[in-house]
Amino acid sequence: MASEEPQNPSPMEPQEGSNKISKKEAAKLERQRRRQEAAAVAAISAVSVEESDPFSGNYDDVALNDLQSKAVSGRKWTEVGSITPELKDQVILIRGRVQTIRPVGKKIAFVVVRERGFTVQCVLTVKVDLVSSQMVKYATSLSKESIVDIEGVVSIPEKPITGSTQQQVEVQISKLYCVNRAVPTLPINIEDAARSEVEIEQALEKGEQLVRVNQDTRLNFRILDIRTPANQGIFRIQCQVENIFRQFLLSEGFVGIHTPKLIAGSSEGGSAVFRLVYKGGVPACLAQSPQLHKQMAICGDFSRVFEIGPVFRAEDSFTHRHLCEFTGLDVEMEIKEHYSEVMDIVDRLFVAMFDSLNENCKKELEAIGKQYPFEPLKYLRKTLRLTFAEGIQMLKEAGVEVDPLGDLNTESERKLGQLVAEKYGTEFYILHKYPQAVRPFYTMPCHDNPSYSNSFDVFIRGEEIISGAQRIHVPEFLEKRAGECGIDVKTISAYIDSFRYGAPPHGGFGVGLERVVMLFCALNNIRKTSLFPRDPQRIAP
Amino acid sequence: MASEEPQNPSPMEPQEGSNKISKKEAAKLERQRRRQEAAAVAAISAVSVEESDPFSGNYDDVALNDLQSKAVSGRKWTEVGSITPELKDQVILIRGRVQTIRPVGKKIAFVVVRERGFTVQCVLTVKVDLVSSQMVKYATSLSKESIVDIEGVVSIPEKPITGSTQQQVEVQISKLYCVNRAVPTLPINIEDAARSEVEIEQALEKGEQLVRVNQDTRLNFRILDIRTPANQGIFRIQCQVENIFRQFLLSEGFVGIHTPKLIAGSSEGGSAVFRLVYKGGVPACLAQSPQLHKQMAICGDFSRVFEIGPVFRAEDSFTHRHLCEFTGLDVEMEIKEHYSEVMDIVDRLFVAMFDSLNENCKKELEAIGKQYPFEPLKYLRKTLRLTFAEGIQMLKEAGVEVDPLGDLNTESERKLGQLVAEKYGTEFYILHKYPQAVRPFYTMPCHDNPSYSNSFDVFIRGEEIISGAQRIHVPEFLEKRAGECGIDVKTISAYIDSFRYGAPPHGGFGVGLERVVMLFCALNNIRKTSLFPRDPQRIAP
Repeated sequence: MASEEPQNPSPMEPQEGSNKISKKEAAKLERQRRRQEAAAVAAISAVSVEESDPFSGNYDDVALNDLQSKAVSGRKWTEVGSITPELKDQVILIRGRVQTIRPVGKKIAFVVVRERGFTVQCVLTVKVDLVSSQMVKYATSLSKESIVDIEGVVSIPEKPITGSTQQQVEVQISKLYCVNRAVPTLPINIEDAARSEVEIEQALEKGEQLVRVNQDTRLNFRILDIRTPANQGIFRIQCQVENIFRQFLLSEGFVGIHTPKLIAGSSEGGSAVFRLVYKGGVPACLAQSPQLHKQMAICGDFSRVFEIGPVFRAEDSFTHRHLCEFTGLDVEMEIKEHYSEVMDIVDRLFVAMFDSLNENCKKELEAIGKQYPFEPLKYLRKTLRLTFAEGIQMLKEAGVEVDPLGDLNTESERKLGQLVAEKYGTEFYILHKYPQAVRPFYTMPCHDNPSYSNSFDVFIRGEEIISGAQRIHVPEFLEKRAGECGIDVKTISAYIDSFRYGAPPHGGFGVGLERVVMLFCALNNIRKTSLFPRDPQRIAP
Repeated sequence: MASEEPQNPSPMEPQEGSNKISKKEAAKLERQRRRQEAAAVAAISAVSVEESDPFSGNYDDVALNDLQSKAVSGRKWTEVGSITPELKDQVILIRGRVQTIRPVGKKIAFVVVRERGFTVQCVLTVKVDLVSSQMVKYATSLSKESIVDIEGVVSIPEKPITGSTQQQVEVQISKLYCVNRAVPTLPINIEDAARSEVEIEQALEKGEQLVRVNQDTRLNFRILDIRTPANQGIFRIQCQVENIFRQFLLSEGFVGIHTPKLIAGSSEGGSAVFRLVYKGGVPACLAQSPQLHKQMAICGDFSRVFEIGPVFRAEDSFTHRHLCEFTGLDVEMEIKEHYSEVMDIVDRLFVAMFDSLNENCKKELEAIGKQYPFEPLKYLRKTLRLTFAEGIQMLKEAGVEVDPLGDLNTESERKLGQLVAEKYGTEFYILHKYPQAVRPFYTMPCHDNPSYSNSFDVFIRGEEIISGAQRIHVPEFLEKRAGECGIDVKTISAYIDSFRYGAPPHGGFGVGLERVVMLFCALNNIRKTSLFPRDPQRIAP
């Protein structure tokens, strides 16, 4: 790795450059600096890399200069996840993180290397013709989470290695280069961040106090936290949810669109918006949803559209399920007769999604469940639909009184979820025909009772994940409803005008991506399913 | 349609409701209002719907109440695009827009109906037992772009209908209901908006002045403008570009992520940012790219990530290719040795994308080309790579002097595009090893000359669409470079700290979705490929 000579620069490349220092000098300085750092780290055990070692070329910190795209060597790296007994006796090269280092005396060291969630045990043993004791000392000086290149021979251990995912193999190290060192003391240790509550409690029963990493510390050092197997699983599941959503809709004739997040006026009103000043001093805000523009796309003849993108809510909600920025999965479609056509899409889309996740993401779900144990979601082949009135009645019969023209609060939603699960055996269902008063101004009222609306919410495990409805497609009626809801009609005139040029009846729904993942996996906090969450108290990292 | 009785409300539904008006009354009032409107429209030809017509149930405006999800009738609508001679003599029901209406005397009217870009000619002929002359009058009163339901029998015309996409069939209308009326005078006519420059000029040669709709008018009435065949094609192509991008990367082991758009501090510096005040009075801005967070995801062990989402640039650029908000396609990946690994992905990804568009989007490309004629993009099976120095040299030999350590301006980029096309026969190529001074602070300098960097731009038809590079993964070096570039290191400390816990060498690139579509189709303005564009002078609709 350090043995390649820099290639001759192409004759066409200018050779001047004011800040230029000799490349050899740079490499040397950098290597020196790295060694000093390594020496400091290992000071306690008085280890240092000694130049007198005849095998000193087999281990070292890689100089920065050698990592600046110096050359393409043609070497092949083997992925840790693909190291299996079939590779026995082969020399392989791997790159990964030092997950743990365990010296045994001064002649042996075990290094567990991790890459993309897979781990393999590598063994360094002093050998007269290959491995010096200095090399073992060097290995034990490496800090956890450092990136290393390891060359070695695949061997089969006598007993399976229980501490790594690749249990049937080991790697006998012949070369060891540190590509990038982690600081010696990490703000959180990955094994602490990966620990389940059950483990902590079981240890406590034995009188042992294990570290519990709290949510805020995790989020402050998110790039360490997301290295845990559970988090690797969560965000791969998230990617799959989005992918299934998209592929299902494409197969049903929907078109994916992108609508602006910078909006003049006050978006769709309702909850608080983030305001800013646009070019030319024009007051603007961040879209709370693509609602208005996705409807405009329908008026623009796209028939069926979806959008995946950020939505912004400047709400002061400090709950386990609200964020100031999250990823909205939005759908809008022409309807021929009835908003049940929209619910049909919801039904088939989500059943297909749950099926696919259970089928194709077993490894990820297992990794999540190991740290955060959960029961698989119960859902029916054909999604249950109850009217709001039927829901109210169920609650009433269970002794919970709810305003028949008001909204359900979190508590009654949960209770209803329990009742539905008991009665119908599903944790995923649709509640429709909500009171008009609790829905946005653009919601179409019921044909036979304007106190109710052609709208629905969808619940997983007693929590709302989807909101949808038929929309008002008649501009005069829309204007009237906006006015009644206290919205300044002038600020949404472009939206209302969209319906003056021939507007088809239509409806749609919006889903919170983070909520779907949180509730499918029965996680207790939406911050667990947002890569870099934003809440009223957090805008970093 | 109007014949269905409202269903009995479920006994569980509350019947109270303060604003309630009788449903029958509402329907009647609404129908009256619609009729009055229709009558006004048709006033010139003194047409009105007469109650005395025994066939009056076969045509009318549908009352709003009947469009409020009254019932599911079980009727099936046939898509206009699927009406073919195989349906001869069958009774079908279609919903679409009235594209044109042409009366022939008082007994015949031709109505061309459009749905999802497909059109079919429908014929209304007075028949003693079915169609009254009043019904023909009603039809001619309909405004263009209104939404209608038509029931009729499929017949085969003697000669193909050249004015519609379904040329081998007609529909003999038996019932005609207007679902939603467009205003009688549209701000722009679809046929005007769909006209090519060539048509306008050819007409002019014959002394005929056709309407040319300018860009600003189009954007002011975007929802009419996007109904043209070219625009329907453009946004379906855009959806496909995104889809191919995603599917290719997923197949290469990338994970799709979502990073926050609300950022503390000033994003990655450089061009102007949109500022706002976050909760608690914290100063914040909108992300100019997911650059910092996608790199953090790499430090968080995701190995290879991509993101599709909005990026925000508060630049005062009034060019044909800059927007204040556009859709970024971003990629970041670990590299083993060389930034050419990133260019390899660009190469294979875009060749696969162009192949797929040419193969699977023929109809859309044809629709675009009809209004905006263009030559198919020339590209090689293996994408050409030139160094910046080689590019400079080519320009020099062609008599264009360029600062070897400066950037290329739009003009020299175009010129180089021409030279490359002539010499290598490709309009898609990579230019790499840019001067360090013109790249962002996080760009890794070349190993052998710090005046140059491990970076690249990618061009289509002489215009830049992609920018990419190896990144600096060593925190001390990154801090130094940020400082040298005038960035307040404190504002990006979370980003820099990400590299302290073991950071793999990595690189990536960013693509502008709108630019890819614009340049693949050789369009002359990026506003054509943004659904609702945002520029310094436009934040609506």
